[in-house]
Amino acid sequence: MNKKNCMVAQSGGPTVAINASLAGVIHAVMTLGNYDTVYGSVNGILGILNDNILNLNQIVNQNSANLEKLKLSPAMYLGSCRFKLPDFMDDDSSYNYIFKQFENLNIGAFFYIGGNDSMDTVLKLSEYAKRIGNDIRIIGIPKTIDNDLMMTDHTPGFGSAAKYVAASLLEIAHDTFIYAVKSVTIVEIMGRDAGWLTAAAALARNEYSDAPHLIYLPETYFDKDRFLADVRNLLEKQNNIIIAISEGIRDASGSYINAGESQMDSFGHSQLSGAAKALEYLIKDNINVKVRSVEINVLQRCAAHLSSQTDLDEAFAQGEKAVSLASEGVTASMVTINRISDNPYTVEYGHAEIKNIANEAKAVPKEWIHENGNDVTPEMIAYLTPLIQGEPQITYKNGLPVYMEVPHLSRHR
Amino acid sequence: MNKKNCMVAQSGGPTVAINASLAGVIHAVMTLGNYDTVYGSVNGILGILNDNILNLNQIVNQNSANLEKLKLSPAMYLGSCRFKLPDFMDDDSSYNYIFKQFENLNIGAFFYIGGNDSMDTVLKLSEYAKRIGNDIRIIGIPKTIDNDLMMTDHTPGFGSAAKYVAASLLEIAHDTFIYAVKSVTIVEIMGRDAGWLTAAAALARNEYSDAPHLIYLPETYFDKDRFLADVRNLLEKQNNIIIAISEGIRDASGSYINAGESQMDSFGHSQLSGAAKALEYLIKDNINVKVRSVEINVLQRCAAHLSSQTDLDEAFAQGEKAVSLASEGVTASMVTINRISDNPYTVEYGHAEIKNIANEAKAVPKEWIHENGNDVTPEMIAYLTPLIQGEPQITYKNGLPVYMEVPHLSRHR
Repeated sequence: MNKKNCMVAQSGGPTVAINASLAGVIHAVMTLGNYDTVYGSVNGILGILNDNILNLNQIVNQNSANLEKLKLSPAMYLGSCRFKLPDFMDDDSSYNYIFKQFENLNIGAFFYIGGNDSMDTVLKLSEYAKRIGNDIRIIGIPKTIDNDLMMTDHTPGFGSAAKYVAASLLEIAHDTFIYAVKSVTIVEIMGRDAGWLTAAAALARNEYSDAPHLIYLPETYFDKDRFLADVRNLLEKQNNIIIAISEGIRDASGSYINAGESQMDSFGHSQLSGAAKALEYLIKDNINVKVRSVEINVLQRCAAHLSSQTDLDEAFAQGEKAVSLASEGVTASMVTINRISDNPYTVEYGHAEIKNIANEAKAVPKEWIHENGNDVTPEMIAYLTPLIQGEPQITYKNGLPVYMEVPHLSRHR
Repeated sequence: MNKKNCMVAQSGGPTVAINASLAGVIHAVMTLGNYDTVYGSVNGILGILNDNILNLNQIVNQNSANLEKLKLSPAMYLGSCRFKLPDFMDDDSSYNYIFKQFENLNIGAFFYIGGNDSMDTVLKLSEYAKRIGNDIRIIGIPKTIDNDLMMTDHTPGFGSAAKYVAASLLEIAHDTFIYAVKSVTIVEIMGRDAGWLTAAAALARNEYSDAPHLIYLPETYFDKDRFLADVRNLLEKQNNIIIAISEGIRDASGSYINAGESQMDSFGHSQLSGAAKALEYLIKDNINVKVRSVEINVLQRCAAHLSSQTDLDEAFAQGEKAVSLASEGVTASMVTINRISDNPYTVEYGHAEIKNIANEAKAVPKEWIHENGNDVTPEMIAYLTPLIQGEPQITYKNGLPVYMEVPHLSRHR
């Protein structure tokens, strides 16, 4: 009897670990023998709808080193999408087409690597399969730097982003402490609704530096008077204050702290800027001190040269686990990681029903935020520390990291 | 006869190679035997004025591994200052105090590691020494990520910043190319008056990616209509455009392209933002395409985990060279690096009179900028490529790079 094939796709925003999960899926298919070919749908679920599908066994057959190279490459080898399937009760035309493609390619399992929105796709495809009596296995593999997926201890991509944020804060501390004048540096970190990544800034503290000295998460409301008092108090004790804030800090009414529209740029256009800029000007207007703001930009999710080996290994293992689960008959689920202990750090992989995960978000628990709302607790540090451990051996060529060529990348010139 | 001592200090903005030059000075003093103790003035020349002086032989005597650790640590071990000495014809009180300190500590040579402003201090101290008939040797050791010092092929700190910028552009390319929709990403790079560092973005190009597709330096004037035409032309050929710009791009009248004051942030304060934001809104208002701007922030000058080994080695060698030059009687000079050939890359170290360097700046030559003003030429690539080669072996502890503890770093908690 012929073995079935399987298919994998990637969706949502980039992380540096999402290709490690893809590598895990490919590796498991090629070594476990439960499935024959693993196809890749380009640009998430859109690849199935647009007939843009690759044979992924080939990339390993061409060169067995490609699997390790893929594991270390940032963002999505298969590209991504921001596409939300309609409710099939309203419109089942895309579902018809997707399942016809599955049938044509003899697909027995579909793996979707993504965050909250992608898990909504896993849920809808699972429910549609059940409704039409198709026994294809639909399994989600988590990824998000926001670390906000339910039912799993943490998410692939988060540990590497946390390592990048902590290393950046340490390097910014060295950069900041050189002048013998009072200064405040505000560092804005991604995570609009969940403060996990901002909390990771605390990992920068070491035997000679307590930076960041203040940390503000979106889970507690931001009070500007309390903030200014915090800054003033610290400035009495020391010269240089470094503050980590989430891009999503909000006031008591729930409004985001950010800069509004400006009106007088070089071309007469309006502008928007973020929370750190707003706090920079808040301090400038109220405290006579040198202030600057730094936005830790997209590099926190794509700087693969500074990944966490722990994160990449776990992402790879969760890709492998998805293939095992599918061949055991599991469907309508997401792979999970369950922490057994912090020290020694041990985990095991499992799965949870997708209906308890899709469209939900996991916030930082109140108990892990300092009662003053301006720091995290030792429990948070103990939770975060294992996730940033270990450094992959990056290959450099001509002075730059070597990453996997992206197949859909357009050239010009 | 007793050997004299010497003194070293660091000044200006951080780079990741400035401690490598300090390590070179210390290493040369301890191995060549021309000077006895090497003192470090904390916070540049201010340390001499404020009696804040360290014995640097001790940090190596305490632990010989400290020299290598120092070489790999970002920013200034000795701290910095932004202090311009007055003209001694107007006021020689600081000069009197500085030279009294030199005499008290039996200082035979003073080394100042810094950029353009710091070379002004070297010039003034040299002239004052000559005037009072003091034979102390005053030597500048260059450093600046801007690469804008005269009389030297390039400056320590630039190669590492260039590597960081190129690696970031490559990682941003991976991050950007995942969606099958038209998009423009504008990346703003440091260097207000000189485009060297922005030019280094071109090194991100490889066999599968031509990003950045457009590059704008401050040396040619920025024309918004020509810019919009460049972007429109490219969007006809490909989906994703990545543009590298200097923070200092200017229009034909010499005005900086940036966002003006805004008026409606969360706290009712006014705001300023940069060139990339201004171009983001320019495109949004004129072309129907997804646009985002990314500011490569202070990490381009302090991300020591991604340094260029070539840069660190050259910075160290220039620190050593300064000590040799001083003991040979050279003064009123800056250490220089002279390129013998690009391939194989070979250099030799020399020196140049400080009066031809202080307060001057080296711009990118027009011949190295594409005639359309939107790219650099192959000559620029050939010049830049050797400078980013090689990766130092960074030690990690608990998931983060291990850097040298900064002695003047204040703690709290």
